[in-house]
Amino acid sequence: MKIAILPGDGIGPEIVAQAVKVLNALDEKFELESAPVGGAGYAAHGHPLPEGTLALAKAADAVLFGAVGDYQYDNLERALRPEQAILGLRKNLGLFANLRPAILYPELAGASTLKPEVVSGLDILIIRELTGDIYFGQPRGVRECPDGPFKGQREGFDTMRYAEGEIRRIAHVAFQAAQKRDKRLTSVDKANVLETFQFWKDIVIDVSKDYPDVALEHMYVDNAAMQLVRAPKKFDVIVTGNMFGDILSDAAAMLTGSIGMLPSASLDANNKGLYEPSHGSAPDIAGKGIANPLATILSAAMMLRFSLGRAEQADRIENAVKSVLAQGLRTVDIHEEGTTKVGTEEMGNAVVKALA
Amino acid sequence: MKIAILPGDGIGPEIVAQAVKVLNALDEKFELESAPVGGAGYAAHGHPLPEGTLALAKAADAVLFGAVGDYQYDNLERALRPEQAILGLRKNLGLFANLRPAILYPELAGASTLKPEVVSGLDILIIRELTGDIYFGQPRGVRECPDGPFKGQREGFDTMRYAEGEIRRIAHVAFQAAQKRDKRLTSVDKANVLETFQFWKDIVIDVSKDYPDVALEHMYVDNAAMQLVRAPKKFDVIVTGNMFGDILSDAAAMLTGSIGMLPSASLDANNKGLYEPSHGSAPDIAGKGIANPLATILSAAMMLRFSLGRAEQADRIENAVKSVLAQGLRTVDIHEEGTTKVGTEEMGNAVVKALA
Ligand SMILES: CC(C)[C@H](C(=O)O)[C@@H](O)C(=O)O
Ligand SMILES: CC(C)[C@H](C(=O)O)[C@@H](O)C(=O)O
Repeated sequence: MKIAILPGDGIGPEIVAQAVKVLNALDEKFELESAPVGGAGYAAHGHPLPEGTLALAKAADAVLFGAVGDYQYDNLERALRPEQAILGLRKNLGLFANLRPAILYPELAGASTLKPEVVSGLDILIIRELTGDIYFGQPRGVRECPDGPFKGQREGFDTMRYAEGEIRRIAHVAFQAAQKRDKRLTSVDKANVLETFQFWKDIVIDVSKDYPDVALEHMYVDNAAMQLVRAPKKFDVIVTGNMFGDILSDAAAMLTGSIGMLPSASLDANNKGLYEPSHGSAPDIAGKGIANPLATILSAAMMLRFSLGRAEQADRIENAVKSVLAQGLRTVDIHEEGTTKVGTEEMGNAVVKALA
Repeated sequence: MKIAILPGDGIGPEIVAQAVKVLNALDEKFELESAPVGGAGYAAHGHPLPEGTLALAKAADAVLFGAVGDYQYDNLERALRPEQAILGLRKNLGLFANLRPAILYPELAGASTLKPEVVSGLDILIIRELTGDIYFGQPRGVRECPDGPFKGQREGFDTMRYAEGEIRRIAHVAFQAAQKRDKRLTSVDKANVLETFQFWKDIVIDVSKDYPDVALEHMYVDNAAMQLVRAPKKFDVIVTGNMFGDILSDAAAMLTGSIGMLPSASLDANNKGLYEPSHGSAPDIAGKGIANPLATILSAAMMLRFSLGRAEQADRIENAVKSVLAQGLRTVDIHEEGTTKVGTEEMGNAVVKALA
């Protein structure tokens, strides 16, 4: 089993190093191979997703990804900016299913900006379609406005689109995930305004016939944003498109107050996947040894479960993380009075120790 | 001065009746004329925005709108559904600037799902562009997928677009609103992915040269959704497009926990406007006499200020609302122990009394 290790920028290398340490501490050894990505890819090879990095990711059984982006790359032209690497990996690897759990660990309930009774025990799963929608639709660009009151002016434009098969496959992923949980699925759309999402809704309803055991509801995206704030625990699994999913999954993650704890998986049709923390590259704290490595370590656990068929090893890592939390160890982002503040390395070492 | 009164569906008629009572209690009398809209428009004339209703709205100096939507209209074809009335009014009246304050009244701090220290004193203004973006862009529909791996299948599609002049005029509204407040403006975009919003960002930067006294920052929409949950008080004025604004303004409203208190204004280039509560038609509680009329009453105050040039009368109404809150009167949606539960009518009457 070969794992591509793409640390990226900012805190990426530090946190990925801890996850690698955890992987290396398992009995079974995996072949790990690193390559630069994002700003590091640009610095090394003039492109955020260098050919060699893409080739490695394609050849590997799974990809462990840190985070990309740093100040010095902010003014590059868009095609060369770090985040193009992540879009390129998703598209080239066909990673259409993004799974983002928003879980509030009981020990960290205080970290949320929401009242404890609103969020304690939160455990929702957001499934975001990741290779379609307005992220990749053509045509797009800046052109002369063809009609209407602004005719002749410049206008920016993009195309939102979803083909039937794209909606079907993500819907199947979502229904099957719901079957393994509380059997409730909320499909988020904007069918009252968008043709794309009226179509989305129609197809999801059609797919639902294969899953009579799952309770399906439909919710407009604006209402979903409200309900996430009002009563997030009412959700079980949420499925939505790429753009709405980008917004809602980040909002849901922030409800926990501990985004430094949240892993994510992006899967292709064969459960090959890219695994990364839900947070970003945090260049402001890079190199200080204070970043929370747990989201990345938990991403490695998701990788073992979904792509490498090693559910037991995944359980072990997840239990080790729970155990370090129970011991009261906290990086600065989740630190509270009465707990022990530790750095990135110490936290990684504690997880390794708890594995044993 | 003529005001078009469009009560709509669900709780719309009940809450609008209270706002009308408040308007009638002012010294200056306005000409008020009602017409059916939404489901009521469909029931009366076969269309959610009947010709006579649109003509009235066009002829009036301002429009006071309740809410639209009710169960019995849910299965109509999209073009006849109630919400088409609101889209039609926006487009036909050129109401491109939607102003949605998210304010937490000190007395209602407990109603929020967020911790008091995170939201107490919240006072942000979201300015949403309302007649452009993917809401109205052409082409749109369901077609045969022209290329890629799903070629030949059906696909739903829409067009996102913003012309230069559309961005300029909403940016001017936003900078001028910021000048009257804390002089900080956050422009929310997704310039890292969308051509439309890279263009949006470029134009906003250009407009900012006219407002050197306003501090402009740019934020990606996913990050904005997070920051609204994490530290909403850091915002002053937010400006964004129609689709992102739909999502973020509802999320921001829900932060207060008292969406029944929040008014909105939708303005054209000459400050003619449509005024409506930020909440919906709530058909589940319609006719029970328990709906909160304050958002609609506060919408009437915004109308007096922005479209009718009667700022003093607006102040009087807003103070009257503050006074009924201080008296401890609460409709059920904002009721807490130790306060007095009142119905829709009683609340309206109390505001009228407090005006005197
Ligand atoms: C960096 C950006 C292109 C990306 C996205 O919008 O998908 C990020 O926000 C994410 O959610 O992974
Ligand atoms: C009813 C719907 C078309 C509308 C919108 O999406 O604009 C509503 O959500 C709103 O925000 O006023």
